[in-house]
Amino acid sequence: MRKKEEKKISIAVIRRLPRYFRYLSDLIKLDIKRISSKELSQRMGITASQIRQDLNCFGGFGQQGYGYNVELLYDEIGKILGIDKRFSCIIIGAGNMGNALANYQNFRNRGYDIVGIFDADPRKVGTVINDIKVYHIDDLESFVAKQHVDIAILTVPGSRVNEVASKVTALGIKGIWNFSPTDLKLGSDIVVENVHLSDSLMVLGYRLREKLNGSEQ
Amino acid sequence: MRKKEEKKISIAVIRRLPRYFRYLSDLIKLDIKRISSKELSQRMGITASQIRQDLNCFGGFGQQGYGYNVELLYDEIGKILGIDKRFSCIIIGAGNMGNALANYQNFRNRGYDIVGIFDADPRKVGTVINDIKVYHIDDLESFVAKQHVDIAILTVPGSRVNEVASKVTALGIKGIWNFSPTDLKLGSDIVVENVHLSDSLMVLGYRLREKLNGSEQ
Repeated sequence: MRKKEEKKISIAVIRRLPRYFRYLSDLIKLDIKRISSKELSQRMGITASQIRQDLNCFGGFGQQGYGYNVELLYDEIGKILGIDKRFSCIIIGAGNMGNALANYQNFRNRGYDIVGIFDADPRKVGTVINDIKVYHIDDLESFVAKQHVDIAILTVPGSRVNEVASKVTALGIKGIWNFSPTDLKLGSDIVVENVHLSDSLMVLGYRLREKLNGSEQ
Repeated sequence: MRKKEEKKISIAVIRRLPRYFRYLSDLIKLDIKRISSKELSQRMGITASQIRQDLNCFGGFGQQGYGYNVELLYDEIGKILGIDKRFSCIIIGAGNMGNALANYQNFRNRGYDIVGIFDADPRKVGTVINDIKVYHIDDLESFVAKQHVDIAILTVPGSRVNEVASKVTALGIKGIWNFSPTDLKLGSDIVVENVHLSDSLMVLGYRLREKLNGSEQ
């Protein structure tokens, strides 16, 4: 049930919320009770006006001359991001990236439980990664029939990702987190987040070049 | 040498450029010569006004009623991102994530050469990942003395990342791509990009929940 005054928050703001959430979590660990948009701006490296605009989107917990109540804001952003809800996830592709993700403790802390790993390589089937069993990809259908799965994390090669995504969609899984280099474009029936690691590396390269050019001048 | 009319581009725009770059690259593969901000908006899922605003930042290659020249725009964004320049990178941490990154072909295509991998585990030292040799972390100093390194990619555990980052900084490496869950806060002498995989997963979770709530109503 939605509160009457609740507004639809734009996806651009939503994409920034996990970052606010992490920073506020750090502040709580440091026992900081309140923070101004200016201080938060300095810590996060984004403008104070952007912060005020973003946080205004969901009611705004800032008070003139007082700043934001850290814990209140943390809880509210957590609620919006739905960290109280748990998601059941599978990883498809037990290669290095699949292994790395299966071992990443943070996902469980954020509400994402990995319940199974799938691979086509018979040598991997039956092994266990961080207490999670590796199944043959051919057993995906019977697995999903027995156990509800919200999200499929795809770490398969680019050449196989479309085929795997079709299979996942056909089984009624509604979310895909795609690590293959190709953006998946699927129907409106399924939610996809494509991860592009090189995007972040290219930004690093840009900033590094700016810095080196600056210091050479 | 900078052109007289060149403006400083904000980091928020820079962070979106790799995405434009990928989409334009896809359009070139499809032999599409020009595209309107409206069409690009539909493909990329961001507003046409945001696209026009972003692309205006560096001169604007759109013409009313004609749209953007795909190849020109692709080349220009490539130049801004510096994909013609090559960066020499090392990976510190030969675990699953280090392995996954060492095997990622896209980095080399974008101008990022991985020239060495470092780990503290003697069983890993001397092995080779995707033609790249694994060295002992104690040999980092002598390696850097012989070979220029632009970027250190850190895939070490969170408990060790500050120590490793200090070592890297002391050796004069100017860029860090950090995969540990803790944001690195270093001096202004070094450029850091922190990767937070769970941010993207949380956005997926939010969108999925919105979708499921929507279809239940």
